[in-house]
Amino acid sequence: MSCVLVTGATGFVGRSAIAALRLRGHEVHGVARTAPDDVEVHAWHTANLLDPPAVSKLVRDAHASHMLHLAWTTKHSWFWSDPANLAWARATCGLVDAFAEAGGIRAVMTGSCAQYDWGVEAIGASGLACETVTPRRPVTLYGHAKQATTDLLEAWSTETEMSYATALLFFPYGPYEKPERLVPSVTRSLLAGEAALVTAGTQIRDFIHVDDCGAALAALVDSEVTGAVNVGSGKGSSVADVANTIARIIGREDLLRIGTLPSSDEGPKVVASTTRLCNEVGLAPRYDLETGLRDTVEWWRDL
Amino acid sequence: MSCVLVTGATGFVGRSAIAALRLRGHEVHGVARTAPDDVEVHAWHTANLLDPPAVSKLVRDAHASHMLHLAWTTKHSWFWSDPANLAWARATCGLVDAFAEAGGIRAVMTGSCAQYDWGVEAIGASGLACETVTPRRPVTLYGHAKQATTDLLEAWSTETEMSYATALLFFPYGPYEKPERLVPSVTRSLLAGEAALVTAGTQIRDFIHVDDCGAALAALVDSEVTGAVNVGSGKGSSVADVANTIARIIGREDLLRIGTLPSSDEGPKVVASTTRLCNEVGLAPRYDLETGLRDTVEWWRDL
Repeated sequence: MSCVLVTGATGFVGRSAIAALRLRGHEVHGVARTAPDDVEVHAWHTANLLDPPAVSKLVRDAHASHMLHLAWTTKHSWFWSDPANLAWARATCGLVDAFAEAGGIRAVMTGSCAQYDWGVEAIGASGLACETVTPRRPVTLYGHAKQATTDLLEAWSTETEMSYATALLFFPYGPYEKPERLVPSVTRSLLAGEAALVTAGTQIRDFIHVDDCGAALAALVDSEVTGAVNVGSGKGSSVADVANTIARIIGREDLLRIGTLPSSDEGPKVVASTTRLCNEVGLAPRYDLETGLRDTVEWWRDL
Repeated sequence: MSCVLVTGATGFVGRSAIAALRLRGHEVHGVARTAPDDVEVHAWHTANLLDPPAVSKLVRDAHASHMLHLAWTTKHSWFWSDPANLAWARATCGLVDAFAEAGGIRAVMTGSCAQYDWGVEAIGASGLACETVTPRRPVTLYGHAKQATTDLLEAWSTETEMSYATALLFFPYGPYEKPERLVPSVTRSLLAGEAALVTAGTQIRDFIHVDDCGAALAALVDSEVTGAVNVGSGKGSSVADVANTIARIIGREDLLRIGTLPSSDEGPKVVASTTRLCNEVGLAPRYDLETGLRDTVEWWRDL
């Protein structure tokens, strides 16, 4: 059993990661602005991670050996270009530095598949993003901030005793996802008997059930794997596939309006290579898209 | 006239940059741990840049419109792998953020040619590093920290009102360089009538007189050029050339022992493309190697 400090503990991914860490027998210390009623941990710490003295106090108080750092600016859509990405990059470096200073031995930060170059010349026609091959050339401030932090902490850890990894998250979906995002918005509209408007949705992405994502993060914390590790399902589905599957599960294909929202001009295909996750971390995702979406629809139905 | 805040103001490059900024008519506010007697500025500010509250106070007190940020960990040799590079990357982001918050409009940070990939496959047989073409793939923690900071601040500035540039310094030499570095160590040994031991020195680098470097930085601060700009002479010289020229100037070729120190395994040729510096910033270096080394030898002789 290790003592694991988890930031962003009340978030969508944080909840699942905490459940997976507790299943593995770890003592979890959660960090939140305010402690929630419905997430079980060994102890809650309230701290503003953008405030350096609060961070120093936090790592001393928690005295954890491991850390899973999920907190970041995440306001829907806006986070891509939020100037606060700079403060979060800085705060993350400060947190990991303070954590090492306080005796921490291993830290995992969550990054994003948005750190990769999604252009077809870079990623190839397969769309398969590979940690050691696919160039990381982000196009958004968020992607740059995550990539700069990843690069800096990786290089820094080679000169210190800290063991460090970055989990590059693909597209988690499932219970507790923010209502304005793809899966919840389609699900909620259809469950309410309302039309669900979506884009043409031809772009292919790697959707992973949040419990698989949480399990992967917990396994990564437990491992000694360093550097970047993709956290995805390894399978690509189009956005239209996802919407159609939800509509079929709910039985309201009649209300689905594919192609009624304007499409943005993103990469056609982005799928995680899961070789590192499966072979080195030893974690294979358990949900296929159908099962994962059924679980998600049930959760919204029961809410 | 602008008010320019200069960090690292008492350093080797800082002194020349301050002289050049004053020549351009700017009011210079220098930052140092302790104010020196022999550098003239409008005002000195003493601040520990690694301390966030001190940084907030500094930028409020100075109330500058422009900033030239030179301070960083620079302990000879050791700085390449100094874990404090993380703290300096963080402090730099915090400083620029606080400077923007306090009303600053333009910031220039000094980076390094060590941010480029020096491998011949990346840089080409010419060894010419070009800001927009040559990949930046550092191999040291220092290089990673400078590149991560460059990338982060560049991306951040596109989402804010701040005008931002990074000067990628090549190999400055001249008065006030640290005695243990190449030019001073050869010069001092030969002036003292002692043998000067150097490596085979076949690697070709871009050496720039520190006054050209300072002039380039001052011009860059004054310009509206954003992104990365090489600060080099545009000419390559081997380390052996440099040592031989110094020996010839001093008239002690008999004491020069080329090939007596072990060589490290670095890139064979790294020279700055000065197209951006000359055409966009409008600054052409004035010293050739011979003239620059004569000036340097005189300085050490008169010391």
